[in-house]
Amino acid sequence: MKDLASKETYMDTALALAEVTIGQTSPNPSVGAVVVKDGSVIGMGSHLQAGSAHAEVHALRQAGEAAAGAVMYVTLEPCSHHGKTPPCADLIVEHQLAKVYIACLDPNPEVAGRGAEKLRQAGIEVEVGLRQERAIELNRRFFKQIREKLPFVTLKAAMTLDGKAAASTGDSRWITSEAAREDVHRQRDLHDAVLVGIGTVMADDPRLTVRLPEGGKQPIRIVLDSDLRIPADSKLLTRPEAPTWLICGSSADVEQAKLIKPHVKVFKLDTKKVELEAVLNLLAEQRVQSVYVEGGSSIHGAFVETGLFDECHWYIAPLLLGGSDAITVVGGGVSPEYIRQARQLEIKSVEKISGDLKIIAVPKKEAE
Amino acid sequence: MKDLASKETYMDTALALAEVTIGQTSPNPSVGAVVVKDGSVIGMGSHLQAGSAHAEVHALRQAGEAAAGAVMYVTLEPCSHHGKTPPCADLIVEHQLAKVYIACLDPNPEVAGRGAEKLRQAGIEVEVGLRQERAIELNRRFFKQIREKLPFVTLKAAMTLDGKAAASTGDSRWITSEAAREDVHRQRDLHDAVLVGIGTVMADDPRLTVRLPEGGKQPIRIVLDSDLRIPADSKLLTRPEAPTWLICGSSADVEQAKLIKPHVKVFKLDTKKVELEAVLNLLAEQRVQSVYVEGGSSIHGAFVETGLFDECHWYIAPLLLGGSDAITVVGGGVSPEYIRQARQLEIKSVEKISGDLKIIAVPKKEAE
Repeated sequence: MKDLASKETYMDTALALAEVTIGQTSPNPSVGAVVVKDGSVIGMGSHLQAGSAHAEVHALRQAGEAAAGAVMYVTLEPCSHHGKTPPCADLIVEHQLAKVYIACLDPNPEVAGRGAEKLRQAGIEVEVGLRQERAIELNRRFFKQIREKLPFVTLKAAMTLDGKAAASTGDSRWITSEAAREDVHRQRDLHDAVLVGIGTVMADDPRLTVRLPEGGKQPIRIVLDSDLRIPADSKLLTRPEAPTWLICGSSADVEQAKLIKPHVKVFKLDTKKVELEAVLNLLAEQRVQSVYVEGGSSIHGAFVETGLFDECHWYIAPLLLGGSDAITVVGGGVSPEYIRQARQLEIKSVEKISGDLKIIAVPKKEAE
Repeated sequence: MKDLASKETYMDTALALAEVTIGQTSPNPSVGAVVVKDGSVIGMGSHLQAGSAHAEVHALRQAGEAAAGAVMYVTLEPCSHHGKTPPCADLIVEHQLAKVYIACLDPNPEVAGRGAEKLRQAGIEVEVGLRQERAIELNRRFFKQIREKLPFVTLKAAMTLDGKAAASTGDSRWITSEAAREDVHRQRDLHDAVLVGIGTVMADDPRLTVRLPEGGKQPIRIVLDSDLRIPADSKLLTRPEAPTWLICGSSADVEQAKLIKPHVKVFKLDTKKVELEAVLNLLAEQRVQSVYVEGGSSIHGAFVETGLFDECHWYIAPLLLGGSDAITVVGGGVSPEYIRQARQLEIKSVEKISGDLKIIAVPKKEAE
């Protein structure tokens, strides 16, 4: 191992340390750090949870006095400001490190290059950009929130090979395999919130919780429900294992008894119908960094129509249902007249999960 | 190479010789043969076209007198009966081969083990089953025809990631990339016939020909057209580069002037509406071994509803169209009420073609 270790290998290790914490650090980014001296790793760490110690702190604590003259590999620029913890840049200076590799600068305007600058002024060599692409990808939810002041939106759909999300009767259990559904639970754990339309609540009465053998963090359960039609006995209201947020329109009656529960919050928008842009602005204000949109058909239609999404997770089961009366996976009132008006994506990965396929696609970048 | 060559390698070579001829030998199977003596290949051949010499004949002709004492690897059982050419089994006996490896027996009742038997009786060692699965897969269209007296049906669809084959206006050009459409032309070349519904002819006025840089065989172009509504100026009637077969119902007027063309044939069924089972029986009688079904939506719906298909080629473009008014890839009047009633498939392969995906799936075999 020692012979093979290159700066890329050390940074990949720091990235791996960060990656295992995805979903548990929000609203903070996931960060990993590795400290190396004379070809030996002398300290490692990840930021585990908002409010707790940063990755650099763990790694330097482990390294102790040996850190003097060592090299640090850190996936995101060390902070330069006093937040809930003291600035990591100061700590690195105190420990007299010789060099710091930073995968990417922090987009947060309170940092944004100042952390790196502080290190350089203290005479520490700094190199920015090693494995930058992977580091930005890793924290894409955080970057989206900081840069655009909007949550990162993942559309998730489960469909037959002919694009149906349910039979004409509404029956949708189950299109995909148990293994694929477990993957969905894992994704819920990675997002701050899951979001569905009131139609899905009426048809399926879902719990929208994470139910994994290894446990997991419960996301906020958001329902777009213009008129607050949610049934009093729906699991989202009766089961308090996760927060339930109802987003309604301006004419909805928010005083209904069914809504008065400690785990339930109601947000009223200014318009009669719930509009997606307002929803996402609201969620950004509430510091929700990532939303996992589970449909149904017309909710997906609204996200596709407005283009307000960042990633698509598509589970395709090897089933052919047929019938123009079945429920299409992305519905909504009116589709574009021409194929060339469709939203263009780019396929990032295709994975087999049990007998199903999972396709991850992202909006195609405009040619520059 | 010589050191590595095993019996599997030689049979794989014979299979490769057969595979390049898929689509050009119908109604005959694709067959390849390799003759080996003292570790050297001394003869090779494929059956190129119905009515011409069999693979064994080419291989033995090349080997000449050296064939005595040699070993043959052949992908399908040598024939034992006088067809358009004399029996290959006799020719192998004449050439005094020592051993013959046969990948799979010929399902044709006129052969069906008799070829192998004839060789054994002449004192030639025979081993059946080497690479059998690949050999059956290779000739799956031929096997289907012989065993079930029905053509092999491939459903081909091009859709957006949300299962739409066209916008609500009918616009469908183009969903997939040029590379994917070229792959479709290659598939047309591999099938005896392509089949569409009259709706597709009305909406798209397609040519349904093979247009490849390297040329290709033109398939028969079949239209299911219960009432013979096909427009007189449609390309299928005006362009004679391939045969056009119209299959109509019992009340259709087959005497229409537009239909009197040397390249056009009309087949009238007994029922008012064209029924798929009758269509496939008719095609089997006409010795059509394989049909490539290109839609549209309701034709696919009929094939899925009846289950009369053997393979699905699904081209998925990374587009999201949205809208419950868009045209679903597999339509038809009524879909099953429950997801569990959907046709179950098994995914055989997933391939990236330019930015699109091509999924090949086959009906799931019942658990035995």
